[in-house]
Amino acid sequence: MPDGRVLRGRESRRVVLQRAVDLASADGLEGLSFGRLATDLGVSKSGIQTLFGTKQALQVAVIAAARAAFEEAVVRPAMDEPAGAERLRALVDGWIAYASEPLFPGGCFWAANLPVFDSRPGPVRDALVEQQREWRALLADQVSGPDADLAAFRIDAVLAAANTAFRLDDDGAADTARRAVAGLVQGVS
Amino acid sequence: MPDGRVLRGRESRRVVLQRAVDLASADGLEGLSFGRLATDLGVSKSGIQTLFGTKQALQVAVIAAARAAFEEAVVRPAMDEPAGAERLRALVDGWIAYASEPLFPGGCFWAANLPVFDSRPGPVRDALVEQQREWRALLADQVSGPDADLAAFRIDAVLAAANTAFRLDDDGAADTARRAVAGLVQGVS
Repeated sequence: MPDGRVLRGRESRRVVLQRAVDLASADGLEGLSFGRLATDLGVSKSGIQTLFGTKQALQVAVIAAARAAFEEAVVRPAMDEPAGAERLRALVDGWIAYASEPLFPGGCFWAANLPVFDSRPGPVRDALVEQQREWRALLADQVSGPDADLAAFRIDAVLAAANTAFRLDDDGAADTARRAVAGLVQGVS
Repeated sequence: MPDGRVLRGRESRRVVLQRAVDLASADGLEGLSFGRLATDLGVSKSGIQTLFGTKQALQVAVIAAARAAFEEAVVRPAMDEPAGAERLRALVDGWIAYASEPLFPGGCFWAANLPVFDSRPGPVRDALVEQQREWRALLADQVSGPDADLAAFRIDAVLAAANTAFRLDDDGAADTARRAVAGLVQGVS
């Protein structure tokens, strides 16, 4: 039987992480603070600090939570499609929905944070980079031929640029982004 | 004859802006502060504050300074090449050098800052977006055909992703990035 106190701790972590992912998608992982989260959630700062320890541990936990939500929204549904062109389309369509609806208020979590942390070696950068690598490998697995990694690099790059276009509330830029993605996917599938 | 005090003001602005562009390329425009700059440059915080007024005015001035340095390093040399495929190659080669040598310690200034400010309407976002628009238009002008804007969008997207790969100190990622850019430029010129 699970211990009541541990369960409450897990539930608290879940609530804090959900709020922290939303904040970090818009204002960045750097902008996270125990104080800001405590104020937002109406709880004590020391309570949140006890749950996570350091700001860096919080940032790494937030990255894992963002990844889990992304997997659930984009990757898992696409796994129902046959590997190859159909799964690639499902991944890209799912990604466009994830960034444009959007799943997180600031749009793509990695597009917002990787460019900031790419110059800062450490566990936060490592976690972001590892997840980007996994995502590109998943795209490349759906493409046949020796240039699969190049195709995956380009599709991922254009998706990140599309994410910015969606944020700008500029219909022209969003339309160009959608066409740029569609053309690239058509070219490899 | 120029007034001595105004000249000193201009020279001070230049020195502060140069340092601020370097900092903002690595730690972002959000991380800029009068206090940090004053400590770095060994001058008084109030002196820097008098030069720029508000943090937002400083950020906008920093963006203009980054743009001027980029124009000098990447755009002006490419203008010596004939418009079209040759100028496109010169722009892209100049950009790769700008991001990989790099001109600013944190790499591409726009790749570091646009994804952070894309969710924050205001003069900082407007300035970053306007410059990205001009850069993409310059790329598109070198491409013939009805899909020039799509080609420019894709090239710009892949350059931004290449910038991240260069920052990661990962030879494999940097090589993939270079090949992804080369293939895309070859495809349109």
